[in-house]
Amino acid sequence: MVKTFNKRLLATTAIVAFGMAATASAETLEEVMTRRGLSQTDMMAAAKTYTPTGGRDEFIAFASGGQSGQIMVYGVPSMRILKYISVFTPEPWQGYGFDEESKAVLRQGNIDGREINWGDTHHPAITETNGDLDGEYLFINDKSAPRIGVVSLHDFETQQIVVNPILQSEHGGTFITPNSEYVIEAAQYPGVLGRGYAPLSQFNEKFRGAITYWKFNREKGRLEPENSFSIELPPYSQDLTDAGKLVSDGWSFTNSFCAERYVGGIENGRPPFEAGCSQNDTDYLHVINWRKAEEVYKAGKVTMINNHPVIMMDTAIAEGLVYLIAEPKSPHGVDVSPDGKYIVVGGKLDTQGSVYSFEKIQAAIEAKKFSGTDPYGLPIIAMEDAIHTQVALGLGPLHNQFDSKPCIVYTSLYVDSMIAKWDYCEGKLLDKLAIHYNVGHLVAMEGESVHPAGKYLIALNKLAIDRFNPVGPLHPQNHQLIDISGDKMELLYDMPVPLGEPHYVTAIAADKLKPLVRYPYGTNSRTGEKHPDAVRPGSERIERDGTNVKVFMTAIRSHFTPEIVEVNEGDTVEFIITNSERAEDETHGFSVSTYDVNLSLEPGKTATAKIVADRPGVYSYYCTEFCSALHLEMTGYLAVKPKDYVEEAGAAAEEGQAYTQADFDKQTANNVATQEVIDSVVTYITERNYKDFPEVVSLVEDATDQLNFAADSKAKSEEAAAKQDWQNATLWAGQWWQYQVKAADIGLRAKTFLDEHGAVKQ
Amino acid sequence: MVKTFNKRLLATTAIVAFGMAATASAETLEEVMTRRGLSQTDMMAAAKTYTPTGGRDEFIAFASGGQSGQIMVYGVPSMRILKYISVFTPEPWQGYGFDEESKAVLRQGNIDGREINWGDTHHPAITETNGDLDGEYLFINDKSAPRIGVVSLHDFETQQIVVNPILQSEHGGTFITPNSEYVIEAAQYPGVLGRGYAPLSQFNEKFRGAITYWKFNREKGRLEPENSFSIELPPYSQDLTDAGKLVSDGWSFTNSFCAERYVGGIENGRPPFEAGCSQNDTDYLHVINWRKAEEVYKAGKVTMINNHPVIMMDTAIAEGLVYLIAEPKSPHGVDVSPDGKYIVVGGKLDTQGSVYSFEKIQAAIEAKKFSGTDPYGLPIIAMEDAIHTQVALGLGPLHNQFDSKPCIVYTSLYVDSMIAKWDYCEGKLLDKLAIHYNVGHLVAMEGESVHPAGKYLIALNKLAIDRFNPVGPLHPQNHQLIDISGDKMELLYDMPVPLGEPHYVTAIAADKLKPLVRYPYGTNSRTGEKHPDAVRPGSERIERDGTNVKVFMTAIRSHFTPEIVEVNEGDTVEFIITNSERAEDETHGFSVSTYDVNLSLEPGKTATAKIVADRPGVYSYYCTEFCSALHLEMTGYLAVKPKDYVEEAGAAAEEGQAYTQADFDKQTANNVATQEVIDSVVTYITERNYKDFPEVVSLVEDATDQLNFAADSKAKSEEAAAKQDWQNATLWAGQWWQYQVKAADIGLRAKTFLDEHGAVKQ
Repeated sequence: MVKTFNKRLLATTAIVAFGMAATASAETLEEVMTRRGLSQTDMMAAAKTYTPTGGRDEFIAFASGGQSGQIMVYGVPSMRILKYISVFTPEPWQGYGFDEESKAVLRQGNIDGREINWGDTHHPAITETNGDLDGEYLFINDKSAPRIGVVSLHDFETQQIVVNPILQSEHGGTFITPNSEYVIEAAQYPGVLGRGYAPLSQFNEKFRGAITYWKFNREKGRLEPENSFSIELPPYSQDLTDAGKLVSDGWSFTNSFCAERYVGGIENGRPPFEAGCSQNDTDYLHVINWRKAEEVYKAGKVTMINNHPVIMMDTAIAEGLVYLIAEPKSPHGVDVSPDGKYIVVGGKLDTQGSVYSFEKIQAAIEAKKFSGTDPYGLPIIAMEDAIHTQVALGLGPLHNQFDSKPCIVYTSLYVDSMIAKWDYCEGKLLDKLAIHYNVGHLVAMEGESVHPAGKYLIALNKLAIDRFNPVGPLHPQNHQLIDISGDKMELLYDMPVPLGEPHYVTAIAADKLKPLVRYPYGTNSRTGEKHPDAVRPGSERIERDGTNVKVFMTAIRSHFTPEIVEVNEGDTVEFIITNSERAEDETHGFSVSTYDVNLSLEPGKTATAKIVADRPGVYSYYCTEFCSALHLEMTGYLAVKPKDYVEEAGAAAEEGQAYTQADFDKQTANNVATQEVIDSVVTYITERNYKDFPEVVSLVEDATDQLNFAADSKAKSEEAAAKQDWQNATLWAGQWWQYQVKAADIGLRAKTFLDEHGAVKQ
Repeated sequence: MVKTFNKRLLATTAIVAFGMAATASAETLEEVMTRRGLSQTDMMAAAKTYTPTGGRDEFIAFASGGQSGQIMVYGVPSMRILKYISVFTPEPWQGYGFDEESKAVLRQGNIDGREINWGDTHHPAITETNGDLDGEYLFINDKSAPRIGVVSLHDFETQQIVVNPILQSEHGGTFITPNSEYVIEAAQYPGVLGRGYAPLSQFNEKFRGAITYWKFNREKGRLEPENSFSIELPPYSQDLTDAGKLVSDGWSFTNSFCAERYVGGIENGRPPFEAGCSQNDTDYLHVINWRKAEEVYKAGKVTMINNHPVIMMDTAIAEGLVYLIAEPKSPHGVDVSPDGKYIVVGGKLDTQGSVYSFEKIQAAIEAKKFSGTDPYGLPIIAMEDAIHTQVALGLGPLHNQFDSKPCIVYTSLYVDSMIAKWDYCEGKLLDKLAIHYNVGHLVAMEGESVHPAGKYLIALNKLAIDRFNPVGPLHPQNHQLIDISGDKMELLYDMPVPLGEPHYVTAIAADKLKPLVRYPYGTNSRTGEKHPDAVRPGSERIERDGTNVKVFMTAIRSHFTPEIVEVNEGDTVEFIITNSERAEDETHGFSVSTYDVNLSLEPGKTATAKIVADRPGVYSYYCTEFCSALHLEMTGYLAVKPKDYVEEAGAAAEEGQAYTQADFDKQTANNVATQEVIDSVVTYITERNYKDFPEVVSLVEDATDQLNFAADSKAKSEEAAAKQDWQNATLWAGQWWQYQVKAADIGLRAKTFLDEHGAVKQ
């Protein structure tokens, strides 16, 4: 009544492609459209977004995760979310904040001695080469605790967090210079630089804004605090920045709100911040010569605050580093055109898109033509001396992105719930599209680079209201995909955002990303270096130093080595585990029952689970990633002996099940039959042009590994049988068969792959 | 050069629906299909899944988040992820584990004194009434630390975590009885009950499995540990369970693996667990009479372990509570048919689907026809006395789900990477479909209930390999949507899983869910009760008790009350904040710069941010949810005075900006013009049948609120103007305008809604 895998079944069900032929649907396309209420326009949108099994997306979008502290990665145009990358918030699936290696990164983000386990991520930026996105590293800021995270796009893992040494609040990060020289981070709400104290009555005198230029070392893939500097700014609320490019390279542009320097106090009858911070018609665009500031910093004309070099305002004025220009009421986006000639600003409480000319700004600076200075002595360029054009767009212009077509920019209109398409050269409104609802930022493909890719625009809508099935009082946000290839914008797709509130998204051509498929053996993925405690199979061991126990372990489907670890109550135990798989997707996990630890071990990775065995008991450890048919059996025991435990006089453990020669013979016969099946799958594959498919070549390599392991177990089985040790002979024969099953599993995947990718018999 | 919102622009861009008309695409459908490589079959799949803006999904799926410790909610057939619900892992977007109210839930999950901040979630279950899913509550287990989380589907929030008092490991949870009387949780790896210690050499004697029946109190929406009990079981690795239904109601069925009771030790030359745990051809299906066990428990025939009542095996044998039946090698799924008559089991290392007859099992029990007992004395029913039929399916049958069509079941084949459709009454294989790749569980719509809904099946595939754009060594999993409405299964859609590894999904008809749109004013969402510290607008205050400071606060767009909070270094500060919005989606957040705290405040909710002001400084607090055009201005300051700070002799703060009568007149004139625009929007709405759209009625109510607030600010402005206090007159006039902007924002959303939902002019 029990049929383990055998030749007959494999032959009838797996090899003969039973049931795999496509069958005609009972319904016609028209019937389906009628049933689901789809129009012709909907079908066109479906055709432009639907991605069949195995299909690829053209662009990859990296969205800030807002208060989730993560980055969301999704494909365009399918709008399918591919991954969340943890940056500021611990996330156990990735082991982030649970293994010792990633804790070291997360704890770089401690601020003033406090552990912080979340972040309010806002603006991601991808490294650039000559102003083009190059897909090597990704930066993102935290508004709540002024920090920046560095993610390697080689493995989509966070590798560094830096804390801003002088700001108490920031928002305007991260923005990158055209050759990734600096990552720019600006203050938001003014504070006492260095996070000091002063009474709010001295707001104008003692509170300040600032902007930090973080030096990026591309070779190391790390920000270098020791080579970074800041510039002191007035206590306006600095907001977003964009770096100049091409003709404006060397400059950066930062807008601000609350140039009124208003301090609220509604509880004392004062009008609230929102009234006092939005009273004036204009705020200030900050125009900064960062290249010159770098020289000033290198010349040592700085004040050290919290051990960080700051160019003070007096120096900035004397050296001509910072200029102000009036910009429309409560602006958000400041975006430099692909040719670097124009700076487009939207004022949230204005109705226009305002285009500043870099040439005019430079002319005013050179001519020292200023309309005056602000209360801190910073020179102000008159708006009329800097503006190229202004275009009436609608209510709440917020953020701008550029098309691949010359002079075309898209602006989000928050209050209108619309996107405006306009010509920033000629100053002409071209098209508007209603979105749902209240769009914040928007993103066009590579829309912030010197070569925007056009094609798609995504509106990052803050409110979804009625767009999706209800899921309780906390609603998803709504990212709407828009086709911008034609003259008119066309809405294609609504994507609910299931976690956090993205502020900005950056999107790159998928083929620019070249992530690793596996790690070099024994890699600490958080440093990118070889892990000093990685071991190869055969070298696993347990070392004790006082009450510290180190377990040097390997993981391969479907067992850990060692399987039993005995320690004493109170010991500190480190499991340092290397995944010794070669298959690219054979990730293993590791947790110890009732302990607060989980590892994600991708092939080649080494990571450490550290626990204090504070309570006696016998705890399972197991693989937390469904890795194989024998996944549930990939387990072991951590035995924690009580402090006062006295070993009983040692009766050996009795086997739960005893095996005889008959069991051995049965298992062996089954293995022989299984091998015939495997051979037939191998024949099927090798008769075809499998070498044309790298994925299949890799699967075949993995299957070969498994069959080598099988041979090893077979030898052990035969050795035991020669000694008439039927217990071990049977069990090793079982293990031999387990490796066969793994080989068959891989072989069948390879076969399916070949069938579906049109491999031909040779 | 600056144009704040005014009549002309509103009239030309917002009221006249500029650019909103659908335009024909430049490409034809055929051209798009060619460009994107789509076949006719693909277009049919697109038509069956594409959901245009505002469309609704027919089913809502709740997927375990695996090692992420969360639950993923997605729509079917669109396969769009709608929400992540945090259960065992802190998640800041939801404030979970960051506000004091949710910390209280999370910390219920402490185990043996240890804080645990993740979970390995496996099997979600929705409450049932008469065997049908009713959509009220959702349960999910943690394999790593034996716990169960309870999620209310009224607000999609976790409200309870219970810790299993006796298990060191579990996996087989959660499964629910047909009227939600009990939630069932079974051990996985054997341990010493109560998490005690014994040497592994005494595995057979001292290690045990067990099954726990958690009593659910539906009225309270809580599990009741005080009314729950367990049954001791042999040290097999118990796995999944299903409760009997209809004819088999009162019984439950639990399978197991490693009935060999093997203890590995590869480091000492022993074959690994995977070999020793899969040597025998069969394991044991546990058949349990839970109704009778409940009586035995109530009669007090229990042993207390860790203060928890356990029916020991001797009692279970004497009372006839537990029976064993051989089941095929290393089984996973055990699934009771909708009519309750059959139990379908797949053995992962077998090749068949095995169908047991409840009637035959009962006949054997009544006739006391047993083939013997296991080593612990549990009676064994011979497989041939219980089996109804067995069907050859393929390699690695894992889990089963039922169709709405009678006698149809779907079984996942892990090793084959296929789904088998078969007739469990007649014992006939009907169809097979290749999936990509290595399917674990599968789910049919309401497929575990007495009335499966059919239509769709989802394969939960463990490996995606080549299906999606590469995102580094840690790959997404792949959920494949399959149309099961016809005779042949048809693959419709591949959904990457971006976070965690779902084990099981349960899916319910969307219209059975009736979540709240907002909370009753001042609700502690984690208890569902009124929060004792909630305040109404006007009652905000700061109370000090020694070094403890409580700030009773409200949040409404776009300000907090109070806006300035002054404390002393070392004070403990609690911000207890109530969101006083009535609009359903106007969620606010709250964080204090550089502190580890974030709140998610949906309308009506009250939550608490508690910090220790351990370092002097002036820190911003702000709204972390983009709530309105003035979102960035929704801020305040926490001033933490240094311990030894001496107040300087008090020059009053100077205003950053002074206003004159001219400023007041300008602002007032602008407000009057804005009001005309708002009136025109109001006219547009009220001339149409807006009362037919509840969402619009709710928006209009909200706009009315804002205009009432505007009137209040207008009064304050006029009062100040009467005193020639132009500073306050101007600022309150600004605030009056801010409320107008909020009203306009809402009005324009309402207008868009009416336009898109075919409202008619009356």
